[in-house]
Amino acid sequence: MIDEHHIDALTKLLGDKGVVTRREDMEAYEAGARYDRGRAAAVLRPATTEEVSAAVGYCVRSGIALIPQSGNTGLVSGSTPDESGSEVVVSLDRLTRQFALDLDNRSVRVDAGFRLSELNRRLEEHGLFFPIDLGADPRIGGMITTNTGGSRFLKYGDVRRNTLGLKVVLADEAGTVLDLGSDLRKNNTGVDWKQIFIGTSGAFGIVTECVLNLERLPKQTATAFLVPASGAHVLPLLKAMEERLGAYLSAFEGMSRNAIAAAFAHVPALKNPFQGGKVPDYVILAEISRTSSPREGEQPLDAVLESVLAEIWEMEEVLLADALVGPPHEIWALRHALSEGVKHLGKLIAFDLSFRRGDIMAFCDHMKTEMPEKFPGVTVCDFGHIGDGGVHFNLVVAKDSPLLADATFEQRLRNWVFAVAVEQYHGSFSAEHALGRRNQAFYDLYTPEKLRNMAAGLKTLTSPGKLGSVRFG
Amino acid sequence: MIDEHHIDALTKLLGDKGVVTRREDMEAYEAGARYDRGRAAAVLRPATTEEVSAAVGYCVRSGIALIPQSGNTGLVSGSTPDESGSEVVVSLDRLTRQFALDLDNRSVRVDAGFRLSELNRRLEEHGLFFPIDLGADPRIGGMITTNTGGSRFLKYGDVRRNTLGLKVVLADEAGTVLDLGSDLRKNNTGVDWKQIFIGTSGAFGIVTECVLNLERLPKQTATAFLVPASGAHVLPLLKAMEERLGAYLSAFEGMSRNAIAAAFAHVPALKNPFQGGKVPDYVILAEISRTSSPREGEQPLDAVLESVLAEIWEMEEVLLADALVGPPHEIWALRHALSEGVKHLGKLIAFDLSFRRGDIMAFCDHMKTEMPEKFPGVTVCDFGHIGDGGVHFNLVVAKDSPLLADATFEQRLRNWVFAVAVEQYHGSFSAEHALGRRNQAFYDLYTPEKLRNMAAGLKTLTSPGKLGSVRFG
Repeated sequence: MIDEHHIDALTKLLGDKGVVTRREDMEAYEAGARYDRGRAAAVLRPATTEEVSAAVGYCVRSGIALIPQSGNTGLVSGSTPDESGSEVVVSLDRLTRQFALDLDNRSVRVDAGFRLSELNRRLEEHGLFFPIDLGADPRIGGMITTNTGGSRFLKYGDVRRNTLGLKVVLADEAGTVLDLGSDLRKNNTGVDWKQIFIGTSGAFGIVTECVLNLERLPKQTATAFLVPASGAHVLPLLKAMEERLGAYLSAFEGMSRNAIAAAFAHVPALKNPFQGGKVPDYVILAEISRTSSPREGEQPLDAVLESVLAEIWEMEEVLLADALVGPPHEIWALRHALSEGVKHLGKLIAFDLSFRRGDIMAFCDHMKTEMPEKFPGVTVCDFGHIGDGGVHFNLVVAKDSPLLADATFEQRLRNWVFAVAVEQYHGSFSAEHALGRRNQAFYDLYTPEKLRNMAAGLKTLTSPGKLGSVRFG
Repeated sequence: MIDEHHIDALTKLLGDKGVVTRREDMEAYEAGARYDRGRAAAVLRPATTEEVSAAVGYCVRSGIALIPQSGNTGLVSGSTPDESGSEVVVSLDRLTRQFALDLDNRSVRVDAGFRLSELNRRLEEHGLFFPIDLGADPRIGGMITTNTGGSRFLKYGDVRRNTLGLKVVLADEAGTVLDLGSDLRKNNTGVDWKQIFIGTSGAFGIVTECVLNLERLPKQTATAFLVPASGAHVLPLLKAMEERLGAYLSAFEGMSRNAIAAAFAHVPALKNPFQGGKVPDYVILAEISRTSSPREGEQPLDAVLESVLAEIWEMEEVLLADALVGPPHEIWALRHALSEGVKHLGKLIAFDLSFRRGDIMAFCDHMKTEMPEKFPGVTVCDFGHIGDGGVHFNLVVAKDSPLLADATFEQRLRNWVFAVAVEQYHGSFSAEHALGRRNQAFYDLYTPEKLRNMAAGLKTLTSPGKLGSVRFG
């Protein structure tokens, strides 16, 4: 699939450890976390930015197509090779040398191959963390190229907001290394080039190093399940919480009855805290947190949450049907079981959508009303980040459903969901999973021609070589 | 300076109100807020995005050079015409029609010509504000193209962080209108094009409309002057405050003795709160704030600040020499008087620098040590945003100083300050004022050739016409 002399040349550049060509050793790099399996011509594992540069430059001069791969935890087939067997994977998994903490600046300079968990493990003793809260455990480079958000976006923002600087290798004949941004928080001296490498799936360059903003780890946390009086009361409830809690509010997650029921069914050990064990139509997980230790004379955080909820109970408009304050590990256990629970109901067809905050519930209601007629047998198991407009709009089809025998079914379903989300509700078809082979067609469909042409021009300007799974050109 | 038939054609597009050619009416658009006076060929005042598009397209087809101008409060000669009399100013001052508040989404869609003060005036009744705190009162479009930061960056970030969407008119023959981003907080479906128009001084397109994130207005604020035990204790003090206050901390501003003394001298009504009236070497203004109203059982914010300061007093390392909690309007009055005070000392040569937070005091010390030898007679009156690394590094020369007779003096001084800041301390030569004619030479000097070439390519890709005061091409 790739000439032996290319392998020899790349091995000279990267050493034996840096080039993988044995079929069985390549398998782990060929399969996506949820979808698809491709075939790599080879896997490169450079250990430094200089090695990435040398290898990329060589491949571009030789016309070899490259697929950057970070933690390979993405869900849109963005980091795995296609089935042609002609693409070379560039893995970041050995780019884990540099870790330079700057406590004064509250930032860290790290190689892009660090896992999020390892980064946070090293930061914990300093009372710090990288505040992107995800179910998966990606490597940092991939978090940058997908611009992940997560459950605490409401308080800490996305990866873009927390990225101060990047080092990027371009797919040009020289393997040009760009040093973009730095440790500075304020710097307006021209184009902020790092922005075009954030959230663009590695098509414009390979991120090899980053400077990240760090936040202080919370020292107090209080959580509750809130049952809104109805779906229409979810947004007023969010606003009432924001008004009373401001920057304390660190999560406001929505969970539909179907998703919760699936979690209870799949994880019997989960405590069902709802009255009579009856799962409400919709439940909010609210979290408030403080980075300070409890101080004498200061109300404990549980008491703050309880008094805020008492105020909300007393409002003229009845927003709440029920509220249950409980320990964070118990409250979050349900939220964390949703994804696995839903998967076990049947075949999962997942959408990562976002909306204006006021439109989330309306969209979900719209779909739940129309689904039985349009696609009978499809169950909506939505949950998501109400505070920032993100929805994991999960659809499940029973494994024995005749729908699965219809070869056009899944595509028709996807087209319909995206059309309603994007055209009718002006939402996003990829809130935090970015682009990959899986949703390329929707990029092509929903991106105005002028912007597609500009992206093609930008590709030529930065990485004219064959790089990444997404076609911007 | 511009053919009469062009004026006629533009008047047909924009109406009589939309085209200014009388010398006396153009004057206000020709002078910068602090520096320079140019000469405009005409001033265009379109009232809608469509009018901007029509006028820009016409001018590009006719080879006419355009200078976008927003509130014209910038300090780098970014928004005024040069002295040739051939440039046409495009003012945003009539772009003030649209104001669409989305309370659920906590965002507003506004035309770019709104003044910050007017925007916040309209938001106040909803308990909201656009959280960029500045001394000047710019229009929103200019805030976007300079990516302003301000005094509360520490808590709320810069304009970039608070911009959800933009409408931009490109300087191409069609006057293409781009609709970029939107009301969504999470959206990763390709290049986030709005980012290249933020902080780039209008060279790539004219921002005509924006969707902005809003924050809740604080309902409680407590402030104090902190006198650090020495300059070396400023950063440990910041970290001790961050550890204990987290997201409560909304400002941590540094003020040097020279700057404070200048404010006291210029504004005799200012209260001097320091022991014996003796101004300390360095003073920190610390502010904490809460968006919630005081709640029963909750410590008032003044008491929180006092108890945090008591904890810091008890630390093993002595960080504080003194601390004075006082009412916000009195505490901020001194901070707000610094800029005017310093101006009255003599000729002001101002620098808008930024550093890693840990390097700010070291840089200022370095300069204060070397200044008497390198440039005797120049006084350093620095103040700035320690929490985010920004420094208003102000130098003052007595009006009767012989230095001012030396034609090369100011340039030599600028070159030296920038060289130390950028080359030795890896700082930024424009933290929050962005680029204009005033600092173009330093862009040319300190931007790597590859990035300058990429910017030129981006210019061709977006706005090939003559647009803006900065030469990226």
